[in-house]
Amino acid sequence: MNKDFVLSCPVPVTDRKHIVMGHGSGGKLSAQLVRDLFLPAFDNEYLRKLDDQAVFQAGTSRLAFTTDSFVVTPLFFPGGNIGELAVNGTVNDLAMSGARPLFLSAAFIIEEGLAFEELSLVVQAMGKAARAAGVSIVTGDTKVVGKGSADKLFITTSGVGLVPDGISISASNVQPGDDIIISGSIADHGMAVMSVREGLEFEGSILSDTAPLHELVGAMIATGAVHALRDPTRGGLATSLCEVASASAIGIEIEANKVLVREDVRGACEVLGLDPMFVANEGKLVAFVARDSSAAVLEAMLRTRSGSDARVIGRAVEKHAGMVLMKTEIGGTRIVELPFNEQLPRIC
Amino acid sequence: MNKDFVLSCPVPVTDRKHIVMGHGSGGKLSAQLVRDLFLPAFDNEYLRKLDDQAVFQAGTSRLAFTTDSFVVTPLFFPGGNIGELAVNGTVNDLAMSGARPLFLSAAFIIEEGLAFEELSLVVQAMGKAARAAGVSIVTGDTKVVGKGSADKLFITTSGVGLVPDGISISASNVQPGDDIIISGSIADHGMAVMSVREGLEFEGSILSDTAPLHELVGAMIATGAVHALRDPTRGGLATSLCEVASASAIGIEIEANKVLVREDVRGACEVLGLDPMFVANEGKLVAFVARDSSAAVLEAMLRTRSGSDARVIGRAVEKHAGMVLMKTEIGGTRIVELPFNEQLPRIC
Repeated sequence: MNKDFVLSCPVPVTDRKHIVMGHGSGGKLSAQLVRDLFLPAFDNEYLRKLDDQAVFQAGTSRLAFTTDSFVVTPLFFPGGNIGELAVNGTVNDLAMSGARPLFLSAAFIIEEGLAFEELSLVVQAMGKAARAAGVSIVTGDTKVVGKGSADKLFITTSGVGLVPDGISISASNVQPGDDIIISGSIADHGMAVMSVREGLEFEGSILSDTAPLHELVGAMIATGAVHALRDPTRGGLATSLCEVASASAIGIEIEANKVLVREDVRGACEVLGLDPMFVANEGKLVAFVARDSSAAVLEAMLRTRSGSDARVIGRAVEKHAGMVLMKTEIGGTRIVELPFNEQLPRIC
Repeated sequence: MNKDFVLSCPVPVTDRKHIVMGHGSGGKLSAQLVRDLFLPAFDNEYLRKLDDQAVFQAGTSRLAFTTDSFVVTPLFFPGGNIGELAVNGTVNDLAMSGARPLFLSAAFIIEEGLAFEELSLVVQAMGKAARAAGVSIVTGDTKVVGKGSADKLFITTSGVGLVPDGISISASNVQPGDDIIISGSIADHGMAVMSVREGLEFEGSILSDTAPLHELVGAMIATGAVHALRDPTRGGLATSLCEVASASAIGIEIEANKVLVREDVRGACEVLGLDPMFVANEGKLVAFVARDSSAAVLEAMLRTRSGSDARVIGRAVEKHAGMVLMKTEIGGTRIVELPFNEQLPRIC
C-alpha cells in the first residue's frame, strides 16, 4: 500500500514542540501539561492533589484558594456573560472543597478599543454575582494590551474561602460503594455558547446554567457524608468522572439513561456532533457520597433551587480502578475516556 | 487661522467610549477606571483602601490577598522573564502589607503555537523564584486561545500571606513628618525591557531589578516604625508617591538629587525621552517611616542585599495635602503629577 495514501485519523494535533488548543481543553493534553511541566516545576503537596482548589492552613485558619482565567467568546451569551462566569466559577471551585467562599480577586486583561459600555456591563454583572454569592471582590488589577494582542477581554478571578472544621472533601477521598449524584441537567452552558457562535436556529433558546453552588454545597455537607465534589465545567461530566476515578483509584459505573440532558440541548449536540457528557456546565456539581447517607444528601439537594433536579447516576466500585464505564441507553457498556484534544474551545 | 493647521498637543487619547492603553498605565486614566467603574460596582471597605493588596480576617487569621496579570513583551528580557516577574510581583504586593507571603496561584493564558520550550523556561523560572521567596504555587489554571487572540503568554498570579499580629501598614497610614526611604536605584526594570524593545545600543547592559522583597520588609517591620510601603512598579516612583499622598491626605517633598538613577539607565531614559521617576521597578520599595525611628529602619535595610542602596529621599508634610513636590537638581521645585496616559506600555 502506498504510504502517501495512508490517512491518519484522528489528525495529529500536536508536534510536541508547540502549544495547541487541546492543551487548554481539560482533556488528556491538559493533564499531560500539568503532569509533565507544572507539577515538576512547582512540586508541592497541595498541587499534587490535583483538586480544583488548594486547601491549606494559614495561621490558625484552614483555607481554600483557587484561580481561573476566563476567555469565553462571545463575552455575552444566552443566560450570562464572562463577568458572571468569572465570579460563579471561582465561587464554585471554592465550594467544591466544602469551603465557605469569602473573598475574590479580579484581574482584567483588556484589548485596546474595547467599548467602555461592554466592560461596564461585565463589571456590573460581576458585582451583582458577587453580592448574590455573598463574596466581596477585594483586590484587582487592570492591564490593557494593544489592538490584536488579546481578544477583547480576559478575566482571571482567584478566591479565598474558609474550610469548616472537620470537613475533608477531595477528589482523592472517594470510597468504593459511594453513590454518584449529579445536581441537574448537563451541557447547558457549553451549548448555550456554541449555539450563538455557530448561529444555530435554536440560538437563544438554550441558556447557560451559570450559578453559584455554595448554598447547595452547604446543605449537602451538613450531612457529613460527602467524600468528593466537582463542578463539571470544561471537559464536562465525563472529564470530572475520569479525574476522580484516577485521583481516588476507584472504578466508576454510571447509567446513561439517568443523566439528564434537556431536549433542546441534546438536539444542539446532535447537530454539532458533540457528546453532552463532554460539554461544559457552569452551575452543576457531581458528588460522591457514602451510600448509606446518599438518600439524606439527595433529599437536602432537592430542597435547594440549584439541586432541584438532582439524581443518583451511578456508583464508585472497587474493580477497574481509574476507569469510567457507562451503561448506554441500548444496554451496552462503553468506556468513558478523557478526550485527547478539545471538543469545545473557549467556552469558559 | 485655518483650522486644518491647528495641531492639538497632547493628542487626545480617549473618546471616553473605548478603553485605551492609558487605562492600564497606572496613571490618571487607570485611577479614573477604578474610581468610576470598579469601586462602585464592587464596593466594599477593603477595595476602598486602594492598597495593592487586601488585608482581612479569615476565621482566626489575618491575611493579605493580592492579584496581578503580567503581559510583558518580550517574554524574556535582560535580567529576567515574565515568570520571575509574575512570582516576585505578587510576593512583593503581599510583602508591602507587612504579610509573610505563603501561597501563590498561577493562571496561564497561552496563544496557540507558543513554543513548548519557551513556556517551559518560564514555568521553570517561576518554580525557582517561588522557592527563592519561600512560597508554594499551590493551584493554577491553563487556557489556550487561538493564534492571534493573545500575544504569546499572559500570566496572572494571586497570593495569600499571613499578616503578623500588631502590624498595620497601609498607604493611608502616613503621618506628617514621616521620612521617605527608597530601597535603591530606580527605573532599572522598565529601561531593561524598553532597551530590548527599541533595539538601543545599551541593550543588555541594563538589567531588570526583579527580586522578592519580603526579607527586606521583614527586617524593616521588626522596628515597628513603618507606616506605609509601596513597590513602585507600573507608573514608577512618582506614581507611588502620588497615590500615597492622596490616600493619606498628606503632602510629600522629595529631593531629586537624593534619588539614585544608574548612569546607563539615565542615558537610556534621555534617549527615549522618559522621566525615570515614572519608569517601573520590580525589586524596589518606598517606605514611609516615623521620623524618630528612620535611622534604625535605614540601618536594618542597609544590612540586606535588596536594601544595600537604601536612602532617605524626602518627607511627608502637613501642607499641600495630596500633592508631591520635588526639589530639582538645579534648585527649583516642581509638582510631580500622575501622568494622564502611559509612558511605557506592557513592561510588567
